[in-house]
Amino acid sequence: MKARVHVMLKTGVLDPQGEAVRHALGALGFDGVEAVRQGKVIELDLAETDRAKAETAVKAMCEKLLANTVIERYEVELV
Amino acid sequence: MKARVHVMLKTGVLDPQGEAVRHALGALGFDGVEAVRQGKVIELDLAETDRAKAETAVKAMCEKLLANTVIERYEVELV
Repeated sequence: MKARVHVMLKTGVLDPQGEAVRHALGALGFDGVEAVRQGKVIELDLAETDRAKAETAVKAMCEKLLANTVIERYEVELV
Repeated sequence: MKARVHVMLKTGVLDPQGEAVRHALGALGFDGVEAVRQGKVIELDLAETDRAKAETAVKAMCEKLLANTVIERYEVELV
């Protein structure tokens, strides 16, 4: 089973990387880009075939390693 | 209009970051993680309201700045 995890900075947390991208897009002539947020996407290939168990495992991975839950939020999507 | 861009290393390109995550998950006791690939996700807030025009603009941004198309592939999703 495949899982895809999105890890983004929480709303309100300053995102200097996203801000740098927004600035660079403006400098390249792309107008009308109002805001940019940049995050991580992690694709996992799991041996687990049970959907519920896979979701529980991936959430535990996020809490323990993949996301810093003080400043980041995550979304788990099973494919 | 909001757009979400996924930028991942192409299949076959070595992903040391993903490999490090896979190794760390194993060390934390998460068995059955067969492969991990890590990429970027970029969320854009656009002033453009026309769907087709927004998609064209975001693809141009990917080609020029957001992705290195030699080793990376991108997916554009309008929300």
